[in-house]
Amino acid sequence: MFHNIYRTTSLTTRQSNLYYRTLRAASTSTTKGKVLTTARINPHIRNAEYAVRGALPIRAEALNKQLQNDKSLGFDRVVFCNIGNPQQLNQKPITFFRQVASLCDNPELLKPEHRDDLLKLYPQDAIDRAELLLKHIGSVGAYSHSQGIPHIRENIAKFLERRDGYPANPDHIYLTQGASAGVQTVLQMLTENEKSGIMIPIPQYPLYSATLSLINATPVPYYLKEDQDWGLSVEDLKKSVDEARAKDVDVRALAIINPGNPTGQCLTEENIRQIIDFCQKENLVLLADEVYQTNIYKPHQRPFHSFKKVLRSMGNDYNNVELFSFHSTSKGMIGECGRRGGYLECVNIDEDVLAQLYKVASISLCPNVHGQIMTDLMTNPPVEGDASYEQYNKETKGIFESLQRRATKLASCFNGLENVTCNDAEGAMYLFPRVRLPNKAIKAAKDAGIATDAFYALKMLEATGVCVIPGSGFGQEDNTWHFRSTFLPEEHLFDQFCSNIEKFHKDFMTEYRD
Amino acid sequence: MFHNIYRTTSLTTRQSNLYYRTLRAASTSTTKGKVLTTARINPHIRNAEYAVRGALPIRAEALNKQLQNDKSLGFDRVVFCNIGNPQQLNQKPITFFRQVASLCDNPELLKPEHRDDLLKLYPQDAIDRAELLLKHIGSVGAYSHSQGIPHIRENIAKFLERRDGYPANPDHIYLTQGASAGVQTVLQMLTENEKSGIMIPIPQYPLYSATLSLINATPVPYYLKEDQDWGLSVEDLKKSVDEARAKDVDVRALAIINPGNPTGQCLTEENIRQIIDFCQKENLVLLADEVYQTNIYKPHQRPFHSFKKVLRSMGNDYNNVELFSFHSTSKGMIGECGRRGGYLECVNIDEDVLAQLYKVASISLCPNVHGQIMTDLMTNPPVEGDASYEQYNKETKGIFESLQRRATKLASCFNGLENVTCNDAEGAMYLFPRVRLPNKAIKAAKDAGIATDAFYALKMLEATGVCVIPGSGFGQEDNTWHFRSTFLPEEHLFDQFCSNIEKFHKDFMTEYRD
Repeated sequence: MFHNIYRTTSLTTRQSNLYYRTLRAASTSTTKGKVLTTARINPHIRNAEYAVRGALPIRAEALNKQLQNDKSLGFDRVVFCNIGNPQQLNQKPITFFRQVASLCDNPELLKPEHRDDLLKLYPQDAIDRAELLLKHIGSVGAYSHSQGIPHIRENIAKFLERRDGYPANPDHIYLTQGASAGVQTVLQMLTENEKSGIMIPIPQYPLYSATLSLINATPVPYYLKEDQDWGLSVEDLKKSVDEARAKDVDVRALAIINPGNPTGQCLTEENIRQIIDFCQKENLVLLADEVYQTNIYKPHQRPFHSFKKVLRSMGNDYNNVELFSFHSTSKGMIGECGRRGGYLECVNIDEDVLAQLYKVASISLCPNVHGQIMTDLMTNPPVEGDASYEQYNKETKGIFESLQRRATKLASCFNGLENVTCNDAEGAMYLFPRVRLPNKAIKAAKDAGIATDAFYALKMLEATGVCVIPGSGFGQEDNTWHFRSTFLPEEHLFDQFCSNIEKFHKDFMTEYRD
Repeated sequence: MFHNIYRTTSLTTRQSNLYYRTLRAASTSTTKGKVLTTARINPHIRNAEYAVRGALPIRAEALNKQLQNDKSLGFDRVVFCNIGNPQQLNQKPITFFRQVASLCDNPELLKPEHRDDLLKLYPQDAIDRAELLLKHIGSVGAYSHSQGIPHIRENIAKFLERRDGYPANPDHIYLTQGASAGVQTVLQMLTENEKSGIMIPIPQYPLYSATLSLINATPVPYYLKEDQDWGLSVEDLKKSVDEARAKDVDVRALAIINPGNPTGQCLTEENIRQIIDFCQKENLVLLADEVYQTNIYKPHQRPFHSFKKVLRSMGNDYNNVELFSFHSTSKGMIGECGRRGGYLECVNIDEDVLAQLYKVASISLCPNVHGQIMTDLMTNPPVEGDASYEQYNKETKGIFESLQRRATKLASCFNGLENVTCNDAEGAMYLFPRVRLPNKAIKAAKDAGIATDAFYALKMLEATGVCVIPGSGFGQEDNTWHFRSTFLPEEHLFDQFCSNIEKFHKDFMTEYRD
């Protein structure tokens, strides 16, 4: 039935091609007869880099496929520590959330004639919640309001009020497809051309640098201090903005990730106050990426303070400081990454700008309704007295305590390695250890034409199946090398995971010792 | 507990403000002390327009809210004909699709101990499909492969092979969050600056013009001929590309919507062949927006031909014609808009460009997994012999035949109005009637500071609660006025819906007759 031109290109082949292409410098395509070649596509796309799903993970996927038939690799599984993707590593979803989501998808089940059978499979409060949501949503198959379902925005506002002790306005909340989409829209709105600058931390989550590449704006880096628990000082911020402005960059905003990614620090209230004050003095809009706000591992020593709460606590004098805060269903104890749910809250943003934000949202019609439902559930979970509360509490507590144990264990593993130092994770899902590599390894990397830390991470992947991301994908001080690893592997596999890394590192140091 | 600064801005107030702002020319913000004002945001965002969710729908939403307490409006419901959103107007979702989706969300139900209870609520084939999908997906809460779940891409490829009789490569398929996201990514990739041109039809779905505004590229319009059933001629295409190139526009691609939106035409195979030949001669990449491929109301007279099929049928001489084809779960008989599911197929696209497309997809991590599951179901529905086949067939046939009847009825209603002419819908979900308006109406619109057809549509909305979109939101020949209306209101309400429009139009013409 099919013509003969069909030629299967296996994923493996294509992906390893991709891998080799990406590891080396961008090649210029020489394909004849094509209108669309890499040499001719939008150069801002060509220049963007996103290491979290870049060369290393592509190679890891190829190895994962190879493992299906080939047992000679020296490891029996690929462990994806490149990305905060808990359910990929078998973290169980929150039962109540999935129950409600599944009932919203199949409203037939909610008809009275099915109630007896349904109650054998679902608790009453999940049924009640699904009915309430559907009353406000209509069908999950319909486009919703472009800004997000009003009922869900009202619930998010109540959550923010409980969290901060300050009011929140549902009209200033925009549901988004994960936090990433919100960040991208706001960055696009804030910039105009290559002279528009946005301050970003170094190291940073590469969504920021990649998006600034895509929209052809200028990143204005400020450095986090590794020897001060990845903290930041206002003096450094000031130096950074002054230098950029001296080069005629129109610096418009400061992006901050708290808790930090990849660095895991959690800012003190005092530090946040200084940053807000700095933004006011320098006329900068604040972008607070707060997606890890519940991943807090030293809650007494370093609790989470939202930028919104601290800003409001500073009184009316600071009511002209403009803030966008981002949150997501992908992180926390929920880890519902595949749903692409999230929201942004606009604080002190001009009403006309809000209307423009609505217009941009409307061009994409609406954020997916399943992500919106999960955002409702995240910000409005079962409470004491609800039938599902006990289970919800047990599940989230279990995940939290396990993350806390694994964070500690992995930091201790890294700190035990020769020439490696690693700050503790105060928050988020990552550690970002520093590796002091011998000259022989530096030379070998140079000969291979890749960054020194990419060389180290690649060797780790090929030896252990553990996929981490080299620090060069996040930015780092010159002549330092790091990597980012999640601490998400399952707890019962964790000792083996650590000892595999220990063995690899020892062998690597032996091989490349000067 | 909460501070006193909380002031409720009701949605109604804000939305009508928004409405008035948008209807008039863009205002320049004069807010003091804000860094981010409309005058200072990215001008490409400020200049973008998207009428489908613009001023008229915002006013319609305000009226809808007002109706909850105010019965004096002269109508008892707002009918949203501004957007192809079938489930908003109570179209029932396909049972099997929702059953599978809900099981994927709640895998607990699939455990053996629940099987007896589950079989009272779900057919066996829905259970089997959910198990198969979860086997390949893992958890729906995990980020998937950025290009889309490999198993689903394989199923889409098989669907394309069945549809076209030509092979499809799963590696050349990218799952997207609705077709819109795919179109936006490809347009961004194809353009570089304001000199980059993309040919778009006039009238067009304003996703194209809005996206070109956002990315600061140049639309190169070609006109569809209303008196030739909204067909297009290669002579016109040639004229259009020549004119643009004479003005130093680097025309890179031709976008075509088939079946047409807002115009509803379905291209003949011969016409498609001519367009492909034109693209080859002129070195243009082809973007085929084929989201309405199953909304075909004259299947014998005007069947759907995919651009891919026609391109392949033209033989190896055309293997250098580069094609992106877009599809979506939002249209067809499914209407699962809220899920944001879809895919694009790349045909004859350079492998290095595919790698760049993967990189861009990876920055947004992955399309939402629920949308991917719906795309699997759409392209791989129950077949004869399956337990759910009969019901699936009955449901889709019922929706199809009803759409066909409603399309005919609405065209006949429009053609019965004084000074209105309307082509039949060969496909899609819309009619785009032309209204010849009296001079007095033209003057009244001018005095109100809005486009003539916006004036007419606004009057219709205020009088009947029916929300349509003025032709000026899609583009039209100078000095002609149109509006786009879906034919999606429920069939049992349809006669009333038509007679409301008839009464309004008669009154309008009486009031404004010269």
